[in-house]
Amino acid sequence: MSNDALLQRLRDDLGPAAVLTDADVTDAYARDMMPLAPSGKPLAVVLPADTAGVQATVRACAEARVPIVPRGAGSGLSGAANAIDGCVVLSLTKLNEIVEVDAGNRLAVVQPGVVNLDFRSAVEKHGLFYPPDPSSYDWCTIGGNLSTNAGGLCCVKYGVTTDSVLGLEVVLADGSLLKTGRRTVKGVAGYDLTKLFIGSEGTLGVITQATVSLRPLPQAPATFVAGFNTTEAAGEAVARAVREGLVPSLLEIMDAASIKASETYLNTDLGAGSDCQALLLGQSDAGGEAARRELALLEQICTDCGADLVYATDDLEEGKMLLQARRVVLTALETYGVWLTDDVSVPRTRIAELIRGCERISEKVGLKIAVVGHAGDGNMHPTIVYAPDSEDEFARAQQAFDEILEVGLSLGGTVTGEHGVGKIKREWLAREIGPVGIRVHRQIKQALDPENLFNPGSMFSMTD
Amino acid sequence: MSNDALLQRLRDDLGPAAVLTDADVTDAYARDMMPLAPSGKPLAVVLPADTAGVQATVRACAEARVPIVPRGAGSGLSGAANAIDGCVVLSLTKLNEIVEVDAGNRLAVVQPGVVNLDFRSAVEKHGLFYPPDPSSYDWCTIGGNLSTNAGGLCCVKYGVTTDSVLGLEVVLADGSLLKTGRRTVKGVAGYDLTKLFIGSEGTLGVITQATVSLRPLPQAPATFVAGFNTTEAAGEAVARAVREGLVPSLLEIMDAASIKASETYLNTDLGAGSDCQALLLGQSDAGGEAARRELALLEQICTDCGADLVYATDDLEEGKMLLQARRVVLTALETYGVWLTDDVSVPRTRIAELIRGCERISEKVGLKIAVVGHAGDGNMHPTIVYAPDSEDEFARAQQAFDEILEVGLSLGGTVTGEHGVGKIKREWLAREIGPVGIRVHRQIKQALDPENLFNPGSMFSMTD
Repeated sequence: MSNDALLQRLRDDLGPAAVLTDADVTDAYARDMMPLAPSGKPLAVVLPADTAGVQATVRACAEARVPIVPRGAGSGLSGAANAIDGCVVLSLTKLNEIVEVDAGNRLAVVQPGVVNLDFRSAVEKHGLFYPPDPSSYDWCTIGGNLSTNAGGLCCVKYGVTTDSVLGLEVVLADGSLLKTGRRTVKGVAGYDLTKLFIGSEGTLGVITQATVSLRPLPQAPATFVAGFNTTEAAGEAVARAVREGLVPSLLEIMDAASIKASETYLNTDLGAGSDCQALLLGQSDAGGEAARRELALLEQICTDCGADLVYATDDLEEGKMLLQARRVVLTALETYGVWLTDDVSVPRTRIAELIRGCERISEKVGLKIAVVGHAGDGNMHPTIVYAPDSEDEFARAQQAFDEILEVGLSLGGTVTGEHGVGKIKREWLAREIGPVGIRVHRQIKQALDPENLFNPGSMFSMTD
Repeated sequence: MSNDALLQRLRDDLGPAAVLTDADVTDAYARDMMPLAPSGKPLAVVLPADTAGVQATVRACAEARVPIVPRGAGSGLSGAANAIDGCVVLSLTKLNEIVEVDAGNRLAVVQPGVVNLDFRSAVEKHGLFYPPDPSSYDWCTIGGNLSTNAGGLCCVKYGVTTDSVLGLEVVLADGSLLKTGRRTVKGVAGYDLTKLFIGSEGTLGVITQATVSLRPLPQAPATFVAGFNTTEAAGEAVARAVREGLVPSLLEIMDAASIKASETYLNTDLGAGSDCQALLLGQSDAGGEAARRELALLEQICTDCGADLVYATDDLEEGKMLLQARRVVLTALETYGVWLTDDVSVPRTRIAELIRGCERISEKVGLKIAVVGHAGDGNMHPTIVYAPDSEDEFARAQQAFDEILEVGLSLGGTVTGEHGVGKIKREWLAREIGPVGIRVHRQIKQALDPENLFNPGSMFSMTD
């Protein structure tokens, strides 16, 4: 089938408004938020309205041998949703229905195009809680969250996306519809295909529906902050909190560069003093006395580890203000240039070593690197700042990006904690999991997508 | 390679003591605890002492085209570990080392042959908790738990085995060693192969090591019991507890037949009165005031739903005694005959309907069916009692076993909540997941085990 014939068939199947080919329009669907990732020119962007439309698109593209890149909101940070030349970008944003909220069984059925925040708000009306909260939660979609197995600030207590999913509907490479999982909270009938598709970054099929488990709505959080004059002291506090068995609902770290950027941007003093090298921000949603006890233990650990400042509050607004310091870091860094954020996860005892490593790399490449991270689960986001118009700085930023991964691996970590491999960390995935791991990936991809239709070349290559 | 040559090679590679061929000995390795499942005569039972021994066994069997049935302690209830004629039973019991407990990162590395209870005890010495607690925890092995994705009483709060695993080492069909996952609590580098192998019942590879995440040791549990004079009232109490967002650390249900069997066996009166139709048993390990509050809410819900008896205690010994009534049910049923326990999971709002269905089936087949179950996650174990020497009763028990699954599916449930498919529910798996689901299972099996070396015919067939 020629490209023209394919486009005509897609228009016939889905209606002309669902097939976009104007380059000015399709360009907006060609990239996600990761500047390092390559992207190509799509043949078309297709926006089916339902599962049948997705199936029709997949069948037509399979016949025409035109690759498909599935896409949510485009908030990703690995280039996984970036177009490749001549592909069809399959946007799932029109599949945006919350099909069902079953409060009696604490579950919901949702389509991939629903925005994370909209879904959270909808289940909240039933007194229920959908935990996964990536930073882009106000615009990213559930489909993108599923495809990248997205994390967020909640993970230290509530896990990542995969921990909330009971079942999926997935359109396979031949257009057939696979149903995985179930509506029960327990079940072991067959392979865990649900968790195989979650985090597969659109390389195995197109998720058109998910059944997710919900939690009771947690209590309003109490918040604490602690400032340390060495990175090691903050790292030791995290390690002790883990060892003591504390499970706060949030535990974030900011290094000196992040603190400074945030303070400057907010035009405020976080009260940590000029020699503050690291801040820990924590929350407990255990409610009342339990939350106070949990935070008191965290405060004690921080004090024991030499914190200069320890402050806790159960005032909700004050807590939000404190957390604001963490949330604005990436925006604050834009004052200095554009940023490139890395994503590495290390064992929770090695956080300080990772931050020190980033300091060394910063000095070496001559660029600012600010580290923020989900300390409670060791998932760090060292963020490199470079001048937008300097090719040289961009090259050095890339170098720093890679060297951070090197340090992460050397500390027993992984090259991606939550952003994914996509089109930027293929070589790093191969390095982390080795030739047997890559071979198994290829075998599974080959088994489910023999023509390499879905997002070819993303995550790993079938050949090199 | 002839069978004799294979045996000689295995003896050469592993030492003669690691290769058992005496039928009197190998018979003990031919079955698990499920009377319905077929079993065959193994060519040999092989007990390698390390991963290299497992690799050598796999390579030799692959060359000789002799199938391998991996086996833990044999406590399974689906026949997954049952021998097939002429196979090599690969027992993992000698790989029984706890390689590492890393309290700082709340993780441990463990070999598959370690008994669940031994592992629990070992990590408890570090103040840590490994949640998965199948009923056979005092003799089942971690490897069997991984292969079946075992559950237990803790699941309502702490999830099933897969929720505690960070990474695996797996010997593949060509003898190569695959490492999946990582030591960090977060990570999305590549497909989630860890969770693909967990619950795959030995059909995709042989797990030789696992890295598991541990939790803080919970508080000593407080316990409550509630008696209801209708099944529906008990079911409604469970549904309300779910709707109210309660997450006890245990929530079990016993139907009238179970209560009676238990009371008779223990020669005691559970205090529920002669018209008690269902008991709920719950625990909270939240500690102190939090536990009291949690149980008070549960008691209130039970009272509102019409419970005749509601009793709570934070005395540990008394709690154990109450729980004893639940734990002895299967043993108690042996007073009446031999039992055949089923395993079906339904949405938590449908528990009473399942129990009613079992009552109807009991009347129809003329056999006692006692239902116990993990009410908090809808996972029910209707247990059929039949005379050991009656072929007719055995046939009727089989009929009841199947009809229970039928009812479970009709309620939106799954045909196995935690015991697995194995060699008894192949047709039911096909029915639950449909032809597309089975095709994907075959594609993955074919990709990873092209010669169908591992546990062929278990879970699903490659052909029919």
